[in-house]
Amino acid sequence: MGFCDLILKKKDGAELTREEICYLVKGTVDGSIPDYQLSAFLMAVVFRGMTEEETASLTMEMAHSGDTVDLSELSHTVDKHSTGGVGDKTSLVVGPLAAAMGCTVAKMSGRGLGHTGGTIDKLESVPGLRTEMSKDAFLLQARQIGLVIAGQSGDLAPADKKLYALRDVTGTVQSLPLIVSSIMSKKLASGAKSIVLDVKTGKGAFMQTVEEAEELARAMVNIGNSCGRKTMAVISDMNAPLGNTIGNAIEVEEAMQVLKGEGPGDLRALCLRLAADMASVALGFSDKEAMQKAEAMLDSGYAAECFSRFAVAQGAECDPLANFDVLPKANCETPVLAPMDGYVQSLDARICGAVSLSLGAGRRTKTDRIDPSAGIRLAAKPGDLVKKGDLLATLYSAHEADPALLLSAYQIGEEKPILPPLIHTKFF
Amino acid sequence: MGFCDLILKKKDGAELTREEICYLVKGTVDGSIPDYQLSAFLMAVVFRGMTEEETASLTMEMAHSGDTVDLSELSHTVDKHSTGGVGDKTSLVVGPLAAAMGCTVAKMSGRGLGHTGGTIDKLESVPGLRTEMSKDAFLLQARQIGLVIAGQSGDLAPADKKLYALRDVTGTVQSLPLIVSSIMSKKLASGAKSIVLDVKTGKGAFMQTVEEAEELARAMVNIGNSCGRKTMAVISDMNAPLGNTIGNAIEVEEAMQVLKGEGPGDLRALCLRLAADMASVALGFSDKEAMQKAEAMLDSGYAAECFSRFAVAQGAECDPLANFDVLPKANCETPVLAPMDGYVQSLDARICGAVSLSLGAGRRTKTDRIDPSAGIRLAAKPGDLVKKGDLLATLYSAHEADPALLLSAYQIGEEKPILPPLIHTKFF
Repeated sequence: MGFCDLILKKKDGAELTREEICYLVKGTVDGSIPDYQLSAFLMAVVFRGMTEEETASLTMEMAHSGDTVDLSELSHTVDKHSTGGVGDKTSLVVGPLAAAMGCTVAKMSGRGLGHTGGTIDKLESVPGLRTEMSKDAFLLQARQIGLVIAGQSGDLAPADKKLYALRDVTGTVQSLPLIVSSIMSKKLASGAKSIVLDVKTGKGAFMQTVEEAEELARAMVNIGNSCGRKTMAVISDMNAPLGNTIGNAIEVEEAMQVLKGEGPGDLRALCLRLAADMASVALGFSDKEAMQKAEAMLDSGYAAECFSRFAVAQGAECDPLANFDVLPKANCETPVLAPMDGYVQSLDARICGAVSLSLGAGRRTKTDRIDPSAGIRLAAKPGDLVKKGDLLATLYSAHEADPALLLSAYQIGEEKPILPPLIHTKFF
Repeated sequence: MGFCDLILKKKDGAELTREEICYLVKGTVDGSIPDYQLSAFLMAVVFRGMTEEETASLTMEMAHSGDTVDLSELSHTVDKHSTGGVGDKTSLVVGPLAAAMGCTVAKMSGRGLGHTGGTIDKLESVPGLRTEMSKDAFLLQARQIGLVIAGQSGDLAPADKKLYALRDVTGTVQSLPLIVSSIMSKKLASGAKSIVLDVKTGKGAFMQTVEEAEELARAMVNIGNSCGRKTMAVISDMNAPLGNTIGNAIEVEEAMQVLKGEGPGDLRALCLRLAADMASVALGFSDKEAMQKAEAMLDSGYAAECFSRFAVAQGAECDPLANFDVLPKANCETPVLAPMDGYVQSLDARICGAVSLSLGAGRRTKTDRIDPSAGIRLAAKPGDLVKKGDLLATLYSAHEADPALLLSAYQIGEEKPILPPLIHTKFF
């Protein structure tokens, strides 16, 4: 079997067998299939798609293409994954919240590129907090506290890493089976028995329409379940950023506010929804029971306590929950003022993300250093009424920033806008 | 402009501009576009196609991507191109025939891979005949004799060479605009003002159906004409091999027979058709006038005389027209006998080609040496009535061959078969 035959088979719309997909994944990892053949194959998949069986095979083969995390000695393990949004700090809240409810959240997290750092980068803005640890320490903390978040060690799903890098430069990112298998292979390799997916939709999301997001969610839930993981998905809005902060330290601060029963309503609502779903899949709670329990754990302070124990266990010098002042502060604060009276019609999450990146809160390339204090604090969000000269947002950065950067993200008009719901659909 | 943007544009079905195609071709030749991006682009073209404008741009940019042959000082230059068939020795006949009619046939020819050698390899089975010469000698002979056939020197259409090699290993060969631009870019770079295309159809051809062949012919004629070359196409049958020989020396022998007014009828008929068309496009003859003149030139011996002058000018020790014995002979001759009585229903050209290759008449890889004496001489062709034990064919090779190899190409049955026409259509 030569790989060119498999390209032709896919090009002609036929279904690949498990063995053929195994050959593809093996050849991707060991380099025996050259990149130019892989990219032609990926483009054929963009046009021809993959059946559910093919997607499941690809997902499983990629999940087993490198190291896997063995969480089998832990009970009620659950992982949460977001398809990526601006201002999305839910992991910092739902981790301790789900743990407080009895789940085990033992998460390995990457750094990646983007408008802000990943969960690991955000956590590292807490002075002293370490995310590197041995496997034994990782499992011990998971057992003792129910929550551990470590930087990714080992080589999880290297086939996905290679294929994703290739997709990124060959115009083959947008393909449902490729997106599904990429996300789910990493989730399978990460070892949790249950998975909750937060599929974002809207201007700031990968999937711009609710229909696309639903299709992706349905496919991922099917693959997860067919691979033996209890999987659930929520479709949530990402037209405007989530919560009022975009950055690293300021996102930690906002997550702490939610854990204290404060913070913005949208962030709190989504965190409750996701944590309740984590408890549903991992512990078998009914939806109503799970939601009540999640609210109780948040309002009673149990979730906050869990975060504090987690932070101390991972080396935090001071508990950021007790004192936000331990978090790094930016040199420059630039106010962004409303240019006219009116209602904020919309706030483009994509532009907010780009501004956040330009302020230093994210990475353009793997070797970029993140400025943990940089970011954006939003004072006005869609639906808010502002007067000319009112504060819309504050930019945080090391050097002076241009407020005009963010202004193009704000649309202000006379009518009170009708806002999209925060949570669109749920998939079991 | 990054090339990934052009991949996305093509993937989404948009039309590329001339500038964008120029960027593609430049980046292909100078290596600045990596192979994995080129192959993804090629696969997108397989699915999305190309408009006539895009195909013309690609053809012209590839034609000018390297050296070009300047034939502008010669008059009535015409080139003939076949899309590839088994037993196709027409170039050896139509070259001198068209030259005898007043055309200038100044041809550079590659070697390539296949079931037999190319025209150059066939000619080199004539002892002493050389196909390497200086540019000046090439032009001088063209002017003096009207016929010169040289091995390709310089780097004609290197962009096509690179893209074709990539297409061959990435399942992206079958795409009309890519096939058209590949063939026509080389024809444009070769400098002749007029072009006659022999598009083969049937089991032994690239285009299996007449409809596919017609589509290819129409597209090539359009591109040729829109690039300022007078172009015509003939669609001819390639279900069974052309003529009665497949090989190198034995194909030269058969071509000589046709030049002497003998030889198989199908080969003679197609050569007359192609040479007449060459005279039509290059000299402006009407169809009827061209055909009469072609017959006259063949039957009068003028075409044969032109071949002799050509062979001597290019160094042939003896004129093969005068004496076939100068051509190399094979060590072994293996008869293939009819296993039953009946009519030959069909003779699979593809299998004949594969057998010819296995006997040593062709190249599998660029570095293979051709055995000029190897090949197949057919004694029975479709429509012929044979008795059990009659000679169907003779295999020529250096070592003993298995007659069973060729038997699977022959279908013998009771009914007299209805044969497809030799020439299906003509395109102006």
